[in-house]
Amino acid sequence: MAHHIENEDCYSGLSVNSGIEQPPTVNPYLQKRKKKQTYTAAEYTEGILKGNRTILSQAVTLLESLKPEHQVIAQEVIEKCLPYTGKSIRLGITGVPGAGKSTFIEAMGMYLVNDDHRLAVLAIDPSSERSKGSILGDKTRMEQLSSHPNAFIRPSPSAGSLGGVARKTRETIMLCEAAGFDTIFVETVGVGQSETAVHSMVDFFLFLQVAGTGDELQGIKRGIMEMADGITINKADGTNVDRVNLTKAQLTSALHLFPLPESGWSPKVLTCSALNGINIDGVWEMITEYIAFVKESGYFDHKRLRQSKYWMYESINDQLKSHFYNNEKIDALLTEYEQKVVDNKISSFIAAKELLDSYFGK
Amino acid sequence: MAHHIENEDCYSGLSVNSGIEQPPTVNPYLQKRKKKQTYTAAEYTEGILKGNRTILSQAVTLLESLKPEHQVIAQEVIEKCLPYTGKSIRLGITGVPGAGKSTFIEAMGMYLVNDDHRLAVLAIDPSSERSKGSILGDKTRMEQLSSHPNAFIRPSPSAGSLGGVARKTRETIMLCEAAGFDTIFVETVGVGQSETAVHSMVDFFLFLQVAGTGDELQGIKRGIMEMADGITINKADGTNVDRVNLTKAQLTSALHLFPLPESGWSPKVLTCSALNGINIDGVWEMITEYIAFVKESGYFDHKRLRQSKYWMYESINDQLKSHFYNNEKIDALLTEYEQKVVDNKISSFIAAKELLDSYFGK
Repeated sequence: MAHHIENEDCYSGLSVNSGIEQPPTVNPYLQKRKKKQTYTAAEYTEGILKGNRTILSQAVTLLESLKPEHQVIAQEVIEKCLPYTGKSIRLGITGVPGAGKSTFIEAMGMYLVNDDHRLAVLAIDPSSERSKGSILGDKTRMEQLSSHPNAFIRPSPSAGSLGGVARKTRETIMLCEAAGFDTIFVETVGVGQSETAVHSMVDFFLFLQVAGTGDELQGIKRGIMEMADGITINKADGTNVDRVNLTKAQLTSALHLFPLPESGWSPKVLTCSALNGINIDGVWEMITEYIAFVKESGYFDHKRLRQSKYWMYESINDQLKSHFYNNEKIDALLTEYEQKVVDNKISSFIAAKELLDSYFGK
Repeated sequence: MAHHIENEDCYSGLSVNSGIEQPPTVNPYLQKRKKKQTYTAAEYTEGILKGNRTILSQAVTLLESLKPEHQVIAQEVIEKCLPYTGKSIRLGITGVPGAGKSTFIEAMGMYLVNDDHRLAVLAIDPSSERSKGSILGDKTRMEQLSSHPNAFIRPSPSAGSLGGVARKTRETIMLCEAAGFDTIFVETVGVGQSETAVHSMVDFFLFLQVAGTGDELQGIKRGIMEMADGITINKADGTNVDRVNLTKAQLTSALHLFPLPESGWSPKVLTCSALNGINIDGVWEMITEYIAFVKESGYFDHKRLRQSKYWMYESINDQLKSHFYNNEKIDALLTEYEQKVVDNKISSFIAAKELLDSYFGK
């Protein structure tokens, strides 16, 4: 341990060898990055449009930043990129824990980049504990893909509400599209309402399943089955094949009980083995068939437009609420009113009315 | 046609027989009602607590009125009734068209009132066209029940947003409870999100089905299966019994694919024939078993409290939005911004930001 004494002359009671130099507590690489030049919105945009992954990555970091001055630049970059967005196929991927999502994304991703696609893999994962299931927090689980020049892998922002995280993911999609990525994967671990958020920003929603009995399949989150444009049962290999086929029959018959989705496309149930690369092409074929089908019918554009409007209104409604609930007066009153309602002392509607009156300063 | 000329003397070009007197354009009964005395909040409350159905009915009309002065009295009545609410069993009923909801409610209702229950039947039906399926617009379809002294049948308010209609229905539940009704049915025809609204105000949600193949069962609205605490397949009579039993097996197996609801209660699939009065008691027994189960576990109270809080927040969020969207400045800008987003001229988020800045006067 190297002790530094300000005035060495007046201290002689203890001789201390200076020893080896300690590594700094801050990673010098990070320090260097901090000192790195920041770009103007025009420079970011230029870099993104050239497909520069480093600048793209820095722009996403800016987007995720909570600092207002970063937000201003980030929003300007998005506006400038806007004319170059929208040309990718956006694929949402969800699945029960243990469905092999990371292996699947690695296999499907390698299949695509080897076919000259440029692929961005993003995630919505509002939980702060990465280990809970997000595959993208651990890029090493997608070793090949993460080092491939045609792939861009970006974990979910680690903090914030689902609404905030989803919004940032949606903005990241736009930057990736401007950077020339033609295929976007948005992964979710299925926490809370995150499937709905993913569903509202993708063209095709894939639900990854594993073989199991009814009881095991109960891991299915409510409503996911009905959101899926396609279901794929992974791990169809070895002695597992029979069980996978049984599950396929069960899920096909269950899907039959749901109404035909608005797209007019009947969701298919396929099987694959991501580990052994079996039928990865078949799954991709299903997706491209779907895209061709909805482009032909006009549903593709219809859905995209609706999603854009949805995000405008979602963003407005989110911010109206946060403006209200972050109001100091309201914050002070809310617990009190909630308790009164719970104690049946005032009705829910009177409570709401009085809080709103206070907010609007009546 | 009787023409009324202001100054008959100066007009002689055309002789008009006065003809028969035309019926007034306004129903004289309605006019009479208008002249009827209005009560004070205290008088309404007294009448309701005495179980006076006429006064209850008038109070509900007041509640449904859009006039602010009526709303003030109505809210006061609700506050006064509040201590006497909460003691009923609230049952939500939905079903595909043709499932025989009116026959079922008539049969189940008669079964209950004959067993000394006091039953109120309400509805959530935000569509303005009653004929589309609301059973309560046509009381004659529940002839026996509607004339029974222990039953109170009230159709859905005919106009307004789902949020508004649902709120009024929830307030009506409270008035009915204060008037001593121990069982409340809330019926919905399953338009849009109305099941979610019903689900958020009842203790038990019953989904009425009919026999059918997978294709026919596609009439099931997304998500309903997962909301139901019980499914009953109606029309289990005559030659239909085999088909009903097959459907029962299909639905039971499909339910098996869903996770166990939070209540810890496994939803059951029963059959009945409302027309022939078969197994109506069985269905009621399932409901009372469920109620006993969740009262024992504490889930009953937990759900009720959560519903109260839900309605407070729902009411706040609804009104925050309506305050924003009814703002003149916003109203003038909204279409323009929506179009800009659709044309990909500005991002959804910038559009939202600029609208919010305008609203908050920045």
